[in-house]
Amino acid sequence: MHSPLVIIGSGPAGLSAAIYTSRAGLDTIVFGTKPKVAGDYEIDNYFGFEHTISGSELLARGRAQAKRFGTRITEEKVLSLHHNDSGGFHIKTENEEFDACAIILATGVGRVRPGISNLSEFEGKGVSYCVSCDGFFYKGRKVIVLGEGVYAANQGLELLAFTPDVSIVTQGKTLTMTTPFKERLRTAGIPVLEQKIDSLSGSPALSSITFADGSTQEAEGLFIAMGEASSLDFAYTLGLERSGVFLVADKEQKTNIPGVFAAGDCTGGFLQIAVAVGDGATAARSAISYIKEGCQKKS
Amino acid sequence: MHSPLVIIGSGPAGLSAAIYTSRAGLDTIVFGTKPKVAGDYEIDNYFGFEHTISGSELLARGRAQAKRFGTRITEEKVLSLHHNDSGGFHIKTENEEFDACAIILATGVGRVRPGISNLSEFEGKGVSYCVSCDGFFYKGRKVIVLGEGVYAANQGLELLAFTPDVSIVTQGKTLTMTTPFKERLRTAGIPVLEQKIDSLSGSPALSSITFADGSTQEAEGLFIAMGEASSLDFAYTLGLERSGVFLVADKEQKTNIPGVFAAGDCTGGFLQIAVAVGDGATAARSAISYIKEGCQKKS
Repeated sequence: MHSPLVIIGSGPAGLSAAIYTSRAGLDTIVFGTKPKVAGDYEIDNYFGFEHTISGSELLARGRAQAKRFGTRITEEKVLSLHHNDSGGFHIKTENEEFDACAIILATGVGRVRPGISNLSEFEGKGVSYCVSCDGFFYKGRKVIVLGEGVYAANQGLELLAFTPDVSIVTQGKTLTMTTPFKERLRTAGIPVLEQKIDSLSGSPALSSITFADGSTQEAEGLFIAMGEASSLDFAYTLGLERSGVFLVADKEQKTNIPGVFAAGDCTGGFLQIAVAVGDGATAARSAISYIKEGCQKKS
Repeated sequence: MHSPLVIIGSGPAGLSAAIYTSRAGLDTIVFGTKPKVAGDYEIDNYFGFEHTISGSELLARGRAQAKRFGTRITEEKVLSLHHNDSGGFHIKTENEEFDACAIILATGVGRVRPGISNLSEFEGKGVSYCVSCDGFFYKGRKVIVLGEGVYAANQGLELLAFTPDVSIVTQGKTLTMTTPFKERLRTAGIPVLEQKIDSLSGSPALSSITFADGSTQEAEGLFIAMGEASSLDFAYTLGLERSGVFLVADKEQKTNIPGVFAAGDCTGGFLQIAVAVGDGATAARSAISYIKEGCQKKS
């Protein structure tokens, strides 16, 4: 399957972008589950609404608006995003795989922190956020994926290309992954432990983990994949420039990778609906002209 | 009179900024007459409105929203904007003068072109856009102000500081200036001609103008002041960096002059309501922190 444009994130930035791209006649898919604004939000400062509007109502209005111009919106989760061989991007979701020539990232910020006391000491020394970047270094070794959803399941399955000794630890969370993924893990022989890791040990690099109940287990690699794939996860696999937890985007919402645009909270700055909506419109314009110019520029 | 913050322009950028600054407790005045969006606009692509909304309705909603938080909105026209002696700004309007410590320019673009065939040949050679920048060079000379409104009247009156030989030509337009200004011109001995200038002549600099009826008149200076004072007019008097007809603003909507912020169409880029609204919010944040930091930074 092929789509000219994929938007990841269905908050104000993603939907604003979709309104512009769909209205410009571009076949547009938006992937997104629960944007931050869908939570218990009361909005007073987004221009055009005299009275307080709830986040969920504003989003419902924006979704209807985008659909009116032909945007397809799906709650299917994006599991991975990579460069393909033709200068575009390959996207893997829960149920399908396809290629796109341009991507707008509008995933917000909301990275789940695992709550492991000394995690940062082991970053780059056993702790990784990117299977496709670092999996190779764990050839034949014992690795753990930390996470509870389909994203963690997919990371676990991808690690099998490098090592047969993969397990998943949910960090005490209840599994949210779908039955097909649970079955794929079972078939692949990847065990799932609903436990919580408290601390890491090893010198000079990770060699074992300690669970909350005091028990320990050998592990040389720990891949963090909690919640859903975030803009940071995509940043790692695509090589996007970051500034802390944010993606770096210029005034035209271009990232350092041609064909990848970013909008809204995931780009930092003033984390407001007003700004996200403006960013989304600008990212859409940039993506539209990128696609019109032929969609084959290599970085 | 003194106001911490003045916003010039009452379109989406100016009102979005006002919503933020008023809501933050800053005493905020918005000056603005007829924003572009108030015209015959049908809006489909501003996030949050499933069905087409007219520009005038969107503006009415935004004005009510800003007023809800205490913004004062006035249609009084701003005639000039200069640095004052205390690191802030001095503002002259139709009816009053006051000082402000920060300014947000959100005037849109909409410069009126005079329609004089060879105008550009004489720019810097008799044709000027800024009395306070260039008035000095016309000491004792015969000058004409081109314009029909209170802005032109004020420019004419300001020129009296340099030369007694000032007249106003409306470029064929009907006078829109208010009676008090007409009277001030009469008292000052500034004649007003409702004629249209077709071309300029003189070598190496302007020495005469030719009207549409073929008649000519001596003139060594021609100051363009049609319509209302625009962001460009303020740019000239304040020394704001420009790029063509646009003001240069960074990602935080700061201009090169501390205390002056710019938002919306007057800063170029993607001239859309969505972007203007985001710019306005960001400009507001920058202005708020500038004011909180003490409002006395000199450029």
